[in-house]
Amino acid sequence: MRRRVVSVIGDAGVQPGSATYDTAREVGRLLVDAGFRVMTGGLGGVMEAASRGAHESERYDEGATLGVLPHLDPAEANEWVDIVLATGLDHARNTLVANADAVIAVGGGAGTLSEIAFAWMFKRLVVAVKGLGWADRLGDERLDGRARCDVVDDRVYAAKDARDAVVIVVEKLPLYGRRNKGFRGTDR
Amino acid sequence: MRRRVVSVIGDAGVQPGSATYDTAREVGRLLVDAGFRVMTGGLGGVMEAASRGAHESERYDEGATLGVLPHLDPAEANEWVDIVLATGLDHARNTLVANADAVIAVGGGAGTLSEIAFAWMFKRLVVAVKGLGWADRLGDERLDGRARCDVVDDRVYAAKDARDAVVIVVEKLPLYGRRNKGFRGTDR
Amino acid sequence: MRRRVVSVIGDAGVQPGSATYDTAREVGRLLVDAGFRVMTGGLGGVMEAASRGAHESERYDEGATLGVLPHLDPAEANEWVDIVLATGLDHARNTLVANADAVIAVGGGAGTLSEIAFAWMFKRLVVAVKGLGWADRLGDERLDGRARCDVVDDRVYAAKDARDAVVIVVEKLPLYGRRNKGFRGTDR
Amino acid sequence: MRRRVVSVIGDAGVQPGSATYDTAREVGRLLVDAGFRVMTGGLGGVMEAASRGAHESERYDEGATLGVLPHLDPAEANEWVDIVLATGLDHARNTLVANADAVIAVGGGAGTLSEIAFAWMFKRLVVAVKGLGWADRLGDERLDGRARCDVVDDRVYAAKDARDAVVIVVEKLPLYGRRNKGFRGTDR
Repeated sequence: MRRRVVSVIGDAGVQPGSATYDTAREVGRLLVDAGFRVMTGGLGGVMEAASRGAHESERYDEGATLGVLPHLDPAEANEWVDIVLATGLDHARNTLVANADAVIAVGGGAGTLSEIAFAWMFKRLVVAVKGLGWADRLGDERLDGRARCDVVDDRVYAAKDARDAVVIVVEKLPLYGRRNKGFRGTDR
Repeated sequence: MRRRVVSVIGDAGVQPGSATYDTAREVGRLLVDAGFRVMTGGLGGVMEAASRGAHESERYDEGATLGVLPHLDPAEANEWVDIVLATGLDHARNTLVANADAVIAVGGGAGTLSEIAFAWMFKRLVVAVKGLGWADRLGDERLDGRARCDVVDDRVYAAKDARDAVVIVVEKLPLYGRRNKGFRGTDR
Repeated sequence: MRRRVVSVIGDAGVQPGSATYDTAREVGRLLVDAGFRVMTGGLGGVMEAASRGAHESERYDEGATLGVLPHLDPAEANEWVDIVLATGLDHARNTLVANADAVIAVGGGAGTLSEIAFAWMFKRLVVAVKGLGWADRLGDERLDGRARCDVVDDRVYAAKDARDAVVIVVEKLPLYGRRNKGFRGTDR
Repeated sequence: MRRRVVSVIGDAGVQPGSATYDTAREVGRLLVDAGFRVMTGGLGGVMEAASRGAHESERYDEGATLGVLPHLDPAEANEWVDIVLATGLDHARNTLVANADAVIAVGGGAGTLSEIAFAWMFKRLVVAVKGLGWADRLGDERLDGRARCDVVDDRVYAAKDARDAVVIVVEKLPLYGRRNKGFRGTDR
């Protein structure tokens, strides 16, 4: 079976040393510890932190980090991205980041919000770490009434910290099917 | 000067006769009354209602309604769409709908939420009609702390009904510049 | 029935006064004369010429020209574009330009070539004006062996000039269905 | 330095055992032998062959193959794709496949042609294996007159077989910069 890919999303502007950066970094490390690949939007802040954390896992191997950039130049990726997809789609590349096996949000403004919304539409497992921004706000909520899967308590799962977020992914992912067929026009 | 385009966004599933449908229909009519073109995602529910309302304006002329479809077949557009853009981009077409001169949200689930988030990133004027869904929930909020324009009280403007929404667009639009340069990597 | 949309594609760099510019301008005018809307990529050269020509038709009305821009700022559109869609998709916006009811190519480099290729995949009527670039080169050829429609002599139709191009569109368009379902994975 | 990514493009319809399939398979194997990652559109035919060949290299490690799918369901990828990006962009995903460090075309219809055109616009090294389709036809040609790089004889390089194609990539890639800034509006 293919190695699963988990996207880590959040503010591009957070700095190394901040709590949000450190949380994202720990999420990246723990995801690789747990056997996942880490996907991000390839730039700074939370994206950098998660990719960097992935490299700090004892199970890290080259290729464990993916960066899906908004522009066409791969050189814009941060140094911890192993595999770059330079899309040229600008903000629309958020739709690609959102279509991972699962998505973990750490903090986040409107860009992160758009990614959570897309992950929800794509019927993906979404985990939001308590603390700041939209990740804090949407924890344990449903974005709308659509039937996304057979999980009884399906929602954006609130995680209290990095470790809790990865535990939730490991536990819940088998319950989420991988099939999503895109736009159906019934419940946007 | 080019005729301005206002997107009307909301649930694809609402039925003719419902309050949400009627509100979107009135928004469409009043927008054309006020000299705007109406853009939607081209399908049913709120998208249909807004396009249909546009046709009911005394100032309606052919070409006043645009539909930006998720699939490649223009025949999927509702009958009140005059100009079809069939994108094939699936949910990613939401990014195109969000980049109008202004966006009015009526009700709405995750798809609508994604469009509000993109409109916010694109520095567009966003109005949300009180009542249901994300439009109700985000009224008079800011999605994040980014500087979008010079408007002191910049936010997602809450409108109490269709008429109020169009009044806000007419009043506020001159304050919103038309320039948006896309991803800057500083405040997602 | 909806007014049909014809895309005019070609070099962004050709100057007013050049033969290619004049041909594209005449194509734009004749398309509106014949009752079509004109879509382009919204920028300079052939895109500007076709939009400008559209404005010179006696049947021109506001809304007859559409521009699908590569960036997010509508102000980049040339002054003869009535309706702007600012996509932010960079070169990928070529896929949207290619999905019109028909496509007329005038001259053209690699960008035009990509649009002809997409129009072919989308099963669209494609006309190429003899003279320069890829439009000259692909006239009366088939791009590959796929079954696109029931037209016996389906191909990129070579037109000897602007008038001939529009005559071909008027004559052949009824033979081309409007249904295209996108990627089928069988014949790329 | 990041491991370089080479896209292999061509017909989705070719069958195992055909000369084109075998060539693409050898290209995939030799690319991994030479230290590259292999990217494709993730489906059948040439895409499958190249991914499969990559797995047959002695230097293959998990993660050496990328598949960029047109739809949203990762399950559509062939079994030799290690890392799936399920885009939902339909044919527009061709623009992503084209933006690799280099592109090798084997056979190919209109889809392949669109990818070659995009790779050319993105200023990427393009190699075309003699034999069939657009790869055969475009070998040793320039798609248009734009200045793509400082290489004196810049063109779509014709390769006589799989081995020659990979030799050309190894030899020429250092001459091609990695910077491409997308649409400039001067030479489409």
